[in-house]
Amino acid sequence: MILPQITELVAICAKKGIENAILSPGSRCAPLTLAFARHPQIHARTISDERSAAFIALGMAQQLEEPVVLVCTSGSAALNYYPAIAEAFFQQVPLLILSADRPAEWIDQYDGQTIFQPEVYGKHVKGSYQLPDNTNNTDQLWHSSRIVNEAINLAKQFPSGPVHINIPLREPFYPSKDEKLTFPEKPRVFNQEHSSVQLSEESLKRLKNRLQFFSKILIVAGQQKPSDDLQAVLDKLSKEKKVVILTDTISNLQSDQTISLHDHWLGNPNLSQELEPELIISFGKSVISKSLKLFLRKTQASHWHIQEDGKAKDTFQRLSRTIPCSPGHFLNWLATDLKPQDQDYYYRWFQLEKNAKSALSDALRESEFGEYPALSICLSKTPAQSKIHVANSMAVRYLNLLGKRTQEVICNRGTSGIDGSNSTAVGCTFTTKEIVTLITGDMAFFYDRNAFWHNYSMPNLRIILLNNHAGGIFRLIDGPSNQPELEEFFETKQRLSAQHLATEFGFFYSKVVNQEELEASLQDFYEDSIHPKILEIETSSPKNAEILKLVKEKIKPLLES
Amino acid sequence: MILPQITELVAICAKKGIENAILSPGSRCAPLTLAFARHPQIHARTISDERSAAFIALGMAQQLEEPVVLVCTSGSAALNYYPAIAEAFFQQVPLLILSADRPAEWIDQYDGQTIFQPEVYGKHVKGSYQLPDNTNNTDQLWHSSRIVNEAINLAKQFPSGPVHINIPLREPFYPSKDEKLTFPEKPRVFNQEHSSVQLSEESLKRLKNRLQFFSKILIVAGQQKPSDDLQAVLDKLSKEKKVVILTDTISNLQSDQTISLHDHWLGNPNLSQELEPELIISFGKSVISKSLKLFLRKTQASHWHIQEDGKAKDTFQRLSRTIPCSPGHFLNWLATDLKPQDQDYYYRWFQLEKNAKSALSDALRESEFGEYPALSICLSKTPAQSKIHVANSMAVRYLNLLGKRTQEVICNRGTSGIDGSNSTAVGCTFTTKEIVTLITGDMAFFYDRNAFWHNYSMPNLRIILLNNHAGGIFRLIDGPSNQPELEEFFETKQRLSAQHLATEFGFFYSKVVNQEELEASLQDFYEDSIHPKILEIETSSPKNAEILKLVKEKIKPLLES
Repeated sequence: MILPQITELVAICAKKGIENAILSPGSRCAPLTLAFARHPQIHARTISDERSAAFIALGMAQQLEEPVVLVCTSGSAALNYYPAIAEAFFQQVPLLILSADRPAEWIDQYDGQTIFQPEVYGKHVKGSYQLPDNTNNTDQLWHSSRIVNEAINLAKQFPSGPVHINIPLREPFYPSKDEKLTFPEKPRVFNQEHSSVQLSEESLKRLKNRLQFFSKILIVAGQQKPSDDLQAVLDKLSKEKKVVILTDTISNLQSDQTISLHDHWLGNPNLSQELEPELIISFGKSVISKSLKLFLRKTQASHWHIQEDGKAKDTFQRLSRTIPCSPGHFLNWLATDLKPQDQDYYYRWFQLEKNAKSALSDALRESEFGEYPALSICLSKTPAQSKIHVANSMAVRYLNLLGKRTQEVICNRGTSGIDGSNSTAVGCTFTTKEIVTLITGDMAFFYDRNAFWHNYSMPNLRIILLNNHAGGIFRLIDGPSNQPELEEFFETKQRLSAQHLATEFGFFYSKVVNQEELEASLQDFYEDSIHPKILEIETSSPKNAEILKLVKEKIKPLLES
Repeated sequence: MILPQITELVAICAKKGIENAILSPGSRCAPLTLAFARHPQIHARTISDERSAAFIALGMAQQLEEPVVLVCTSGSAALNYYPAIAEAFFQQVPLLILSADRPAEWIDQYDGQTIFQPEVYGKHVKGSYQLPDNTNNTDQLWHSSRIVNEAINLAKQFPSGPVHINIPLREPFYPSKDEKLTFPEKPRVFNQEHSSVQLSEESLKRLKNRLQFFSKILIVAGQQKPSDDLQAVLDKLSKEKKVVILTDTISNLQSDQTISLHDHWLGNPNLSQELEPELIISFGKSVISKSLKLFLRKTQASHWHIQEDGKAKDTFQRLSRTIPCSPGHFLNWLATDLKPQDQDYYYRWFQLEKNAKSALSDALRESEFGEYPALSICLSKTPAQSKIHVANSMAVRYLNLLGKRTQEVICNRGTSGIDGSNSTAVGCTFTTKEIVTLITGDMAFFYDRNAFWHNYSMPNLRIILLNNHAGGIFRLIDGPSNQPELEEFFETKQRLSAQHLATEFGFFYSKVVNQEELEASLQDFYEDSIHPKILEIETSSPKNAEILKLVKEKIKPLLES
């Protein structure tokens, strides 16, 4: 038989709206596996490598904005989840992690797959629970269902994030051959209502009062999901020239009313003074542009950070006020109450944006073939209504340099690792019929190739692989590029091509080494397909470094003019 | 410049005999990378996937019995180490984990690669340290060198294991172009002397007194490294018919004086009574045979467990005494003081061993082609003086069923995961010129394929891949084999072959599907080579299940006779 606390757990998940579970194979977790696989309202998939499984769940939960369940067996399986769990924690993506465990008496007894699972994710989960290992006593069944309710509520509550339930299980794990697995019809459920935080009248008065001292206001939008409401209020604020809005590619709030090419000029000391804001207002999570961060850290500006939970993030070392409410609430208030600001300041930013755009476009057109111009060409073909997953290191930096996108841009910037980009994109394909384009370098791509080791179809996946056979970013920064260890220990030169992987997993594959080939390949790259497609753009790491430098040099005088 | 605490750290490592470091690329860890790469006494290698890097370090440290250094950058990199660190902890293998980190003030500020790194490995390391983030004060340099000394001593001290030093680093990370990196000539070192625990006279008297009540004594050797000394005393004890010695394949103590085929008959209830011991003496770590564990748990025997640190491991639920000294110390005393025991008991075990051996050999010879007979044929060609790495799940179980080996057998039985077997074997090849044979199923093999993603040569690696396109173990146990979810959620059927991987990584490859092909392929499989070789044995999971059952049925009557 399957234990009553397990069937109830799954029934509670379903009742609370969870629709997806990613299972990894194992014997200890069999009761969970069977219950999730058989529940009519839950779509269960199995992924063998737990590291990929967890990033796939993350990729799904990012889109669904609902917890996705992860189920693994006892032992080191749970540890392989950890990179994705940390990413989910910092990116505030809800996950419900269910790790099967041996009962306490069997831990560390030289018998079977055991580690110390309770609380194993330390500070990187919102909560950790231990399910009772039997329900002989009705209080224990009450405890069990309470834990499951609490855990799901906690995962969903702002800021959402991963929650762990460790589940000790005794044999038997399997129902007998013809036993029907039944779920309780009315599992015990308690839901949590949504509340929103409102600023007090007193606070608003104080803020309004403070605002009159600032005439140069920069709004910096950090990483977040696309939001029509936020976009509308931001556009309104900008149109009325009340603020200047900087939007990195991962802010998903780029429009013709926002600045997006600032990474091209904010490192230029000749421009710093005239661009210095008096007030920075930020919301969302991290920004990509290092130039932006360095620029803001050197200013004398005040910085107000808007975040519902009120936690202080002093990214620019200028934090002067945290404003614990939703960005929408605050910005709508701002749009009503703020007066138009310094017009010259506003126009200067847009003049720079315009100059940078045209200079960049010229520089890329005239450039030799390399990652930077190639990616620009690719993006011109990417469907406007689609999703872009971009890997860390150079891929996301190039994307940011290339300016405004209409597509939703997703990147693992919680921990900024290269370890799960493929899997996160795969998870995304499980939630949408839109095209999902993964833009990745070779290191991130091969690191996470187990993302593709499963039997589920991903017809909407397109992979643009920038293969320079190395961690090319290390050649682009001054320190390592001067060291004799550059190629072995920093770039970690590697000779793989995606061709074998494509054959192995049945993906369509083309490789291009120049612009003509690239344009030819792109002609049908976004056509419908029954299999994923990989477009491998092979370039040389030293050449890419040179192009990046040349483009920068070409743009510079046009900005200063 | 490279910070003085970093050059001193590396100099201390070298002075204390550390010779190997596995580095993973990153910028935050650059000072460590450069210092390890440039130190004349340290062999540094770079591995891009941190999960593999850590298992490779484990595979090296298992052989060297000295700490191997791991260096990674900040963020999720350190989390990818975790599965191997847990394995090292339970397998008691020394590792020195050096994770670069941002300084405390930059953690969780929406800037760059940060997680909460201090103490991130929880209970799975012997110790956790945080290096001071500057050495402006000489007391801080003293603190830093003290931590490094303590950490290495702790990693080496019995029971050895992984130790973590988190290292916050500020820019600049790189020396200037022509700067020479110098190491302190006399870094501060304090070593730890070795001590051994001796049983008190009083204890020995008590044990001697107790021993006279037992006439049927079983010695059960758990996982450990080969040891000539232990082998000699065990052989002596057995030759004098004082004890019966059970040696699993991972005990590395198999000889003609020990029992090794007990897994074939200990599940037979008709034999239980006559084989029941009065005293079990165990040492080493875990045993493979589930039949052995279940058999011993049902006995009324006393159980003495010998372990230097005195920790109680009650694997057989019969523990009556822990004996905190080295197995060698105890067994040598036993060999002197023990009188010969029940001779019939002794002969019965050896009669069963003899019968099982001949019945098994007949049954395999007559069997259809499948994993079990194929592996037996392979092992007959494996060089006597070589090393066998075996993956978890069925591979290690088959190996154990196939009886005595002269080769050292290594298996990740600390956590019994499938997650790092390839990498652990790769690490082993870095330490020896002997042949290293990796015996693995397809799930473990493809799970850890990044083991091969580096540029170091492994001419002595031979891989026997038992590919049944699934986690075949699930078909062999009763519970899941009856479930409709068997193939998707338990076996997780997968269609990959190693052929593409072999081409990709430049390995020699052959695939066999029957005995003739297998024998032909084996003819030169163990010949010298410049590249690793993969021998893929493709079989069917249902057929393998059938063969295992048939062999068991054939052996059974011969044992009861």
